[in-house]
Order: sequence, then C-alpha cells, then structure tokens
Amino acid sequence: MGRGIAKRLLHHGFEVYGYNRTPSVANDLGKEGLIPCESLEDLISELEPPRFIWMMLPSGKTTEDTVKLISGMMKKGDCLIDGSNSDYRNSVETAENLAKQGFFFVDMGVSGGIWGENEGFGLMFGAEPSAAEMILPFVKTLAPDQDKGWVHTGPPGSGHFVKMIHNAIEYGMMQAYAEGFELMRSKKEFDLDLAAISEAWTSGTVIRSWILDLVTMSLSRDQGLEDIIPRVSDSGEARWALREAMDLSVPVPVLSSSLFERFSSRDDFRYRQRLLAVIRNAFGGHHVEREESK
Amino acid sequence: MGRGIAKRLLHHGFEVYGYNRTPSVANDLGKEGLIPCESLEDLISELEPPRFIWMMLPSGKTTEDTVKLISGMMKKGDCLIDGSNSDYRNSVETAENLAKQGFFFVDMGVSGGIWGENEGFGLMFGAEPSAAEMILPFVKTLAPDQDKGWVHTGPPGSGHFVKMIHNAIEYGMMQAYAEGFELMRSKKEFDLDLAAISEAWTSGTVIRSWILDLVTMSLSRDQGLEDIIPRVSDSGEARWALREAMDLSVPVPVLSSSLFERFSSRDDFRYRQRLLAVIRNAFGGHHVEREESK
Repeated sequence: MGRGIAKRLLHHGFEVYGYNRTPSVANDLGKEGLIPCESLEDLISELEPPRFIWMMLPSGKTTEDTVKLISGMMKKGDCLIDGSNSDYRNSVETAENLAKQGFFFVDMGVSGGIWGENEGFGLMFGAEPSAAEMILPFVKTLAPDQDKGWVHTGPPGSGHFVKMIHNAIEYGMMQAYAEGFELMRSKKEFDLDLAAISEAWTSGTVIRSWILDLVTMSLSRDQGLEDIIPRVSDSGEARWALREAMDLSVPVPVLSSSLFERFSSRDDFRYRQRLLAVIRNAFGGHHVEREESK
Repeated sequence: MGRGIAKRLLHHGFEVYGYNRTPSVANDLGKEGLIPCESLEDLISELEPPRFIWMMLPSGKTTEDTVKLISGMMKKGDCLIDGSNSDYRNSVETAENLAKQGFFFVDMGVSGGIWGENEGFGLMFGAEPSAAEMILPFVKTLAPDQDKGWVHTGPPGSGHFVKMIHNAIEYGMMQAYAEGFELMRSKKEFDLDLAAISEAWTSGTVIRSWILDLVTMSLSRDQGLEDIIPRVSDSGEARWALREAMDLSVPVPVLSSSLFERFSSRDDFRYRQRLLAVIRNAFGGHHVEREESK
C-alpha cells in the first residue's frame, strides 16, 4: 500500500521522497515523480523540517525498530506517521515517548489495499489535535474524497484501535459470506451458479458490499476453487480485538469464531478432533479410523 | 415491500391490479395508477389469462393458505409468484402441486426492503425455464437495472433457498458490525464518536457495505441507543439455514452464533446463566446473587 499512497500523493501535486529496503521499489516510483532515497538517513536529511515521515511497514518489530531509528534523527516539530496495523497499545506508548522529545506521532489505520491508489484509502487516525491539523492535507488527498472516508478518531492510539476493530469486523463479514456460499455449494440438487448469484447480490440486496464485489470477481474466474489450498492467514488485529474483548468483558461470538476458523484452517494435525474420536470410541465403542502405521 | 413492487411496476408502465386485506392500502395506490380490487376473487376475475399473480405475504400459514385459495381460481397457463421468505421446501412442494394442474409457480426471493422502490430490488428466483422467461419483463423492471441485481437461480425452490442463505449471511454481517461497535463503545478512554467512524468507514474501506450505510444513518441520529430495547427478532430464514447446515453437515459457526445471539436477546429468564451461577457456587462456594423473595 505504501506505493499506492506515494502515487496518490504524487498525482495530487505533493512532493514525496521515498525509501525502501529494496532500492528498485523507490527507483521505479521515480517515473511517477518520487524522489528516491538510498537510506533512511538520506531521506530525513534531504527533507526540510518540519517533516512528515510516513512509515508503511509490517507491524511489530520492524515498525518498532524503525520508529527508534527514525526518532533518533527527528527534530522538534517533525511528525512521524505509522500507517501499519500496529497494536494500538504500542502506538499509545510510542506517541508518549515521541511527545516527550517534542515530536508528533500519528497512528494511521489505512484500509483499501491495492484498490486505494485509484479509489482512495479509508483512513482512521489517532493524533493530538495539532498533529491532526498538520496532516489533514495529506489525509484529504489520500481519502476517496476531501470530506469522505477519513476520521480523526481521537488521541494517539485510537486510530490503530479503530483499525483493529475494522479488521475484526472484516473477518466476521468474510466468514459470514464464506459459510453462506459453502451451504449453497453443498446443495447439489440445485446446481447453483455461485458466481451468478454473487453478482446478482451485488445490486439491490441488503448484503451488497465491497467484500461481495471481491467474492464475485473471484468466483467469476473460478467457482470450484479446487486448486486453492484452504489455509487462511491472520495478521494480528483480530487477536488483539479478542484480547480487548477479554479486557472489556464484551462477548464477541462472531469475531472470535471467525478468527478460530482461520486457526483451524492452518491446523493439519487437529489434535482436538483426534481426541474427540478417541473419547467417542472409549465410551461407545464407536469406530476410530487410524493412520497407516509409519 | 408489496407496495414498493406495485409502484415500481406502475411507474414503468405496467398495468397492475392490487388486493390487500386492508382496502385502504390498495385504494391509496389507486393514485399511482393501481387498479384496486375488493377481493382476491375480483382480482383474478378481472385479469385476462394467462395471469401473473404476485403474492407478498408473511411466509408460512398465511402464504400457504393463500396459495390454496388462489390456485383454486387459476386457469391453465397462469403463473403464481411467491415473493415472501417462504421455506424453500414448501416452495418445491407448491411448485409440484401447481405444475400438476398446469400452473406455473415462481419462488421469488426479494431483497431491498423499503429502499427497493427507488433503488430497485435484489431478486433471486427459482422457476421452470418457461416460467422464468415469462416473468423476465417484470423482473428486469423491478431490479436495479435491466441486467443487474436479478438471477434465475434454477428449478423451483432454489430461489427461496438462495434467499434463505442471503438472509443468514445478513444476520452474520449485522452481528459482526454489532460486536465491533460494542467493542468501540466499551473503550471509554478513547471516547470514540461511533457515528463519525461509521460514516468514515463507508468510503474507501474494506468493510463498506449497504448495511454499514444503515448503521451510519442510525448512529448519526443517536449513537447512545439508550431508548432502544435490546431485543432482536428473527423471521425464520436463519433457522432454516441452520437446519440445512445440519442436513448437509456444513459447519456454520458465524451464522449459528448470529442467530443464537438473537434468541439470547429475547430471553429474560436466562435459565442457563442461572444454572452456571449455581454450579459455580456448588463447586467453589462462589457468591450467587439472588432475586428479592417475592
């Protein structure tokens, strides 16, 4: 998404300097007007303070290490923007640390994936009011429209908190569609054309959504999905949302089921199901299938 | 929705006769060009065969009784359309019974609610090919566009099957949003403006959807929801979807949780939770709160 963000800013007349560990990424964007830098040090020394530095990195250690590296080179009044899906608790802490040094920090939840460059990104950000005001010109440019698709959620940390919830909801919506389509696929007697149904659903129905548009696109290419390995990754936000549900005592049956389905999809050994088979055998003598001895 | 369907057909130049148990409903639509009838008998005798009779009634006994009543007055070649959320198994049966008498039957899943009149309805229908062809002019008019938002799903019964799945997915999506917004509301320290977040999410994000548009509309009026009684009805389709999941051995954790949350919302006595409290007391001596003796 970093590439899309840079391109959208460039196309709207902003001056953008870029650094990527893989030099060709920044160099390629040179054609679009980006000024590529060979190192983080270069990037920061070439910009005039007050600077806006937008990180777009995997959350966790990579982002945290880079925050340390960059903040060591920042000057008072500079603003660091973390556009990754960081744990909001880290963002609260980072903002506090940077504030002590006179630096601004913005935790910027970014949604829209590869489509954002053209359609605009959904942006939700936490920041002190003065920092929020400073970055508004970028935000309004990156969003789908000047006054649409962005929200200053509140104090530092709240942007990544809201993005975490956004992503957990995304898991739940995806799972709802996935279960519904599996039910339809399983109803062999009707021989349903799932691609046609999905496409029809994208207009006029209660369940139309952008995710359904993507379902339609995928199923119209191939609705059998026979060459897709049924493993689904997760990238942390839904786990944090569940942790938050524990802290706040909020029941989230759908959000938790959606995450657990992903865990289940990656679990080939399935110890729990082996155990169920064994217990069932123990009390009822029910047959247990056994692996061929190795 | 029957009113919206009639109006949309009338505005597109169709001749529509209408009957409603409450005469004022049909009479009011007279201003829009509808020809109101005083009884079902009138309605059917005034139309020239082959006739298209569209029922828009609560599913279950009301619809089934009306099918019997109308089919007793139908002539060969007439077509009866059931636009309710009927159990698809009833629709399969009805289609078979009517086919024996030379009548056509279409099970028409209709989505879009009160918005359909202007935006067009999402339509998914099961029908024999000849019946499907006969009703296409109406379908294309009622849909958001001639070639959008409608699908002939397959044989009779398949339309209501697909609508049943549509509604079960709707429950899951609604529940995903509901849990996410409750988590945000519970995070008091950020004092989040849920209406502003919801509205921002409607543009550019991965979770934008029509349901989210409705969430935004509702929260922008009142995000506290303090005068809303937290009881949620269900109208059958999700139950049938779960029954289908049993029959087909398809796990649907999100669809089932979403339905069960609705059951839970209407259960004031909550026997299971009383029992949990008692068991917890029994093994650990944990405190049990008791109702004031009556």
